[in-house]
Amino acid sequence: MLGRVTTAIGAAGGTIGDLELLELDADHTLRDFTVAAADEEHEGRIVAAVGEVEGATVVDWTDRTLGMHVGGKLEVRPKHALKTLDDLSMAYTPGVARVCSAIAADPERAYQYTIKRNTVAIVSDGTAVLGLGDIGPAAAMPVMEGKAMLFKEFAGVDAFPLCLDTKDPDAIVETVTALAPGFGGINLEDISAPRCFEIEERLKAALPIPVFHDDQHGTAVVVLAALINACRLTGRSLADVRALIVGVGAAGVAVAKILVAAGVRDVIGCDSRGALHGEREDYASLPPMKRWLADATNAEGRAGPPADVIEGSDLFVGLSGARVMPGAALGAMAPDALVFAMANPNPEVTPEEAAPFARVIATGRSDYPNQINNVLCFPGIFRGALDVRAREITEPMKMAAAEGIAAIVGDDELGEAMVIPSAFNRDVAPAVAEAVAREARRTGAAPTESEAFGYAPSHTSEFAAIPDAPGGRTDRQ
Amino acid sequence: MLGRVTTAIGAAGGTIGDLELLELDADHTLRDFTVAAADEEHEGRIVAAVGEVEGATVVDWTDRTLGMHVGGKLEVRPKHALKTLDDLSMAYTPGVARVCSAIAADPERAYQYTIKRNTVAIVSDGTAVLGLGDIGPAAAMPVMEGKAMLFKEFAGVDAFPLCLDTKDPDAIVETVTALAPGFGGINLEDISAPRCFEIEERLKAALPIPVFHDDQHGTAVVVLAALINACRLTGRSLADVRALIVGVGAAGVAVAKILVAAGVRDVIGCDSRGALHGEREDYASLPPMKRWLADATNAEGRAGPPADVIEGSDLFVGLSGARVMPGAALGAMAPDALVFAMANPNPEVTPEEAAPFARVIATGRSDYPNQINNVLCFPGIFRGALDVRAREITEPMKMAAAEGIAAIVGDDELGEAMVIPSAFNRDVAPAVAEAVAREARRTGAAPTESEAFGYAPSHTSEFAAIPDAPGGRTDRQ
Repeated sequence: MLGRVTTAIGAAGGTIGDLELLELDADHTLRDFTVAAADEEHEGRIVAAVGEVEGATVVDWTDRTLGMHVGGKLEVRPKHALKTLDDLSMAYTPGVARVCSAIAADPERAYQYTIKRNTVAIVSDGTAVLGLGDIGPAAAMPVMEGKAMLFKEFAGVDAFPLCLDTKDPDAIVETVTALAPGFGGINLEDISAPRCFEIEERLKAALPIPVFHDDQHGTAVVVLAALINACRLTGRSLADVRALIVGVGAAGVAVAKILVAAGVRDVIGCDSRGALHGEREDYASLPPMKRWLADATNAEGRAGPPADVIEGSDLFVGLSGARVMPGAALGAMAPDALVFAMANPNPEVTPEEAAPFARVIATGRSDYPNQINNVLCFPGIFRGALDVRAREITEPMKMAAAEGIAAIVGDDELGEAMVIPSAFNRDVAPAVAEAVAREARRTGAAPTESEAFGYAPSHTSEFAAIPDAPGGRTDRQ
Repeated sequence: MLGRVTTAIGAAGGTIGDLELLELDADHTLRDFTVAAADEEHEGRIVAAVGEVEGATVVDWTDRTLGMHVGGKLEVRPKHALKTLDDLSMAYTPGVARVCSAIAADPERAYQYTIKRNTVAIVSDGTAVLGLGDIGPAAAMPVMEGKAMLFKEFAGVDAFPLCLDTKDPDAIVETVTALAPGFGGINLEDISAPRCFEIEERLKAALPIPVFHDDQHGTAVVVLAALINACRLTGRSLADVRALIVGVGAAGVAVAKILVAAGVRDVIGCDSRGALHGEREDYASLPPMKRWLADATNAEGRAGPPADVIEGSDLFVGLSGARVMPGAALGAMAPDALVFAMANPNPEVTPEEAAPFARVIATGRSDYPNQINNVLCFPGIFRGALDVRAREITEPMKMAAAEGIAAIVGDDELGEAMVIPSAFNRDVAPAVAEAVAREARRTGAAPTESEAFGYAPSHTSEFAAIPDAPGGRTDRQ
């Protein structure tokens, strides 16, 4: 029977994963199959195929991905149990009044006595979610919840998703400014360009805590990390790299910026109308960020679609859409070409098509080598910023994050298929955090160590350093 | 040595709690003392007194209440582990895209696939925190975090604190409206009167989820619960109760409203200028809620300070300030007088002073019988509202909550010292939730059971009911 059922699943195109025996008696066997299907229609066909096997019955079936999301993916938990009146009188009234008064007298103590120092708001308006576009705040929640899981899992950061029912930049800036006091940082997410640039800039100016648009800067940091290692592998220096960026939305602009900041001297950005340059006829009508790009890059004023300007490029960065680049066009690139084709799920050029022309190929996908995944950046960069109570995340801190990621790949590991660590490498976030924290203190983006702990009353400072430390205790109620 | 140290602590006025032996060798004994002190100055004196005992050394000491608050009291945790690429591909990209699309196609599915159905925002502007007043959003956080702990501990509700850096009602309404999509309910907290009335009314009108100002309605529900049982004890009917409310801020107004709604025919509200009535000379300049009170209560137009209008009252409700009522004034109340003096930490009249004149005495304090504590209401009322996906919390639902709380006190337990259950009675929240949910469905404030689950695709509806249910699984990635 098992043979017939598995054959039926296989014939219907399902890939069988785990198989669990639930019940076995003289007449029946009850088994739990985990089967990978291509889509919901395929799912239905597999279930039907099993139902048609004589003697087999589908008792129940469910969609594992949907099932995992039922009820949402996060919970808010007390750090301490409230079992006795004594617990209640410390965590809540009347004991809490003394803690409130301490913060009212010195607002910096919010970092000592509230969740602020470890808590980040993940803010989205749901306008540019994955490849789905403007699906609205409610539908964006599963992505933001997933992001919060990654924050906690990789860096111990408590992140909470806030999806906003407005697309108006003024309203978003006012809302985030109003709700900021309880948070130690703001991670903007999946807000469409060009509004995302204005919103981030205004919030950075308004708030004394880090504001970071992950779609821009997370991507830029990881691209730079991959480039640093690809240069290490191919014996290039960053200054010598000629880079072509296809797609200059939020992520493409940020990549251009970080490449320029890191010393890459020759960058060309292309939008759907071709290469940006100062003489392009629509220059006057370009939004500010594209105009910046037209001014700051492509000094030679090369013009035309990507295939026309790719000649001699060392690096192709794709942040646009599926299959926009014919594989053969890569043949005009410099030797040892680097191709980072990151459109998801279908890259600008497939790794198979790029292979004959490129030495290093990276994508946004987990099923090819060299996945450019923001999870390599955002947990660690916020961990580092929170650890030193940084007021902002600066360009030098982003650069330090990229170097921290790149350095995880040892000389013995570095290769064409390994210019960037795995998204699941647990060493990355701590390394990024340390590099970012050090750079923040060095450059003055965070208070010095003594300033940072100046707000802690001396008799509790050990608690601040080691929350679970034992020690003599004096109580007051 | 232990005798000398404990004697020193006792002589300094400290009350010794737990005593733990940490280390013992030939020369030294290391012990951990838990000592209750009156305030920070007293704390210092106790530490100094121990230090003066010959042969004793204070190795370290800390403040247990402050210590409990270090780093804040909440964390945000993933419900599922992210240990494998498979986990990541379901909880985040690419699997999550399908969940987002399902919600985009049918926004009601947000209740199925996101944290919305179990999550409440605790929103404050920090203007009326405990007895501390307008201490601002950062200093209000410890209270809101404590409240979130109680939500989880008593009712399994995930609540997240949002303290807003604005006092402008327009800005508060816009901010909360913008951030509402991810939440199943809004608990307003510690917002000063009269702004709290306008803010709540506007948010109720704007949002399709329950909005509940706990300082108003939580207090009102628990006062009504205590009154129901006090009437049960003293053989009164609610219609016969003559009530005097001293203090008509947020809580006092809400108590007046719920008493009127519950059938109490004779209510007088007093502010600092005495009893409110339609002929009072400042009537025209009263804020709307006080004017409502002047119109809807005190039909006889009694005038003057509380002591002048208390004659014949069955119920005194104090929601004002310490010691505003001389004990002897209670002598004019009706027989079997009920005195609920809830100013915190010092009531309007102490239980000791009230005792000769009152049969039932309630306060806001945990160290006297009959504590009127909002924790008896808010976890259960939101639990019930969330369970049935109620669109609002209506007067009938509040009434049902009060009856649910009152019914917990059995006939064999009911007495002068027990008209209200303990704040730690774990049976209260489930009973309140059930009563509230039933009333919401009965009165149409929530969808019917079949409507509520109509949004769940049939093959996952079992997951909705029992998140951890086993069952056949079909996967798709």
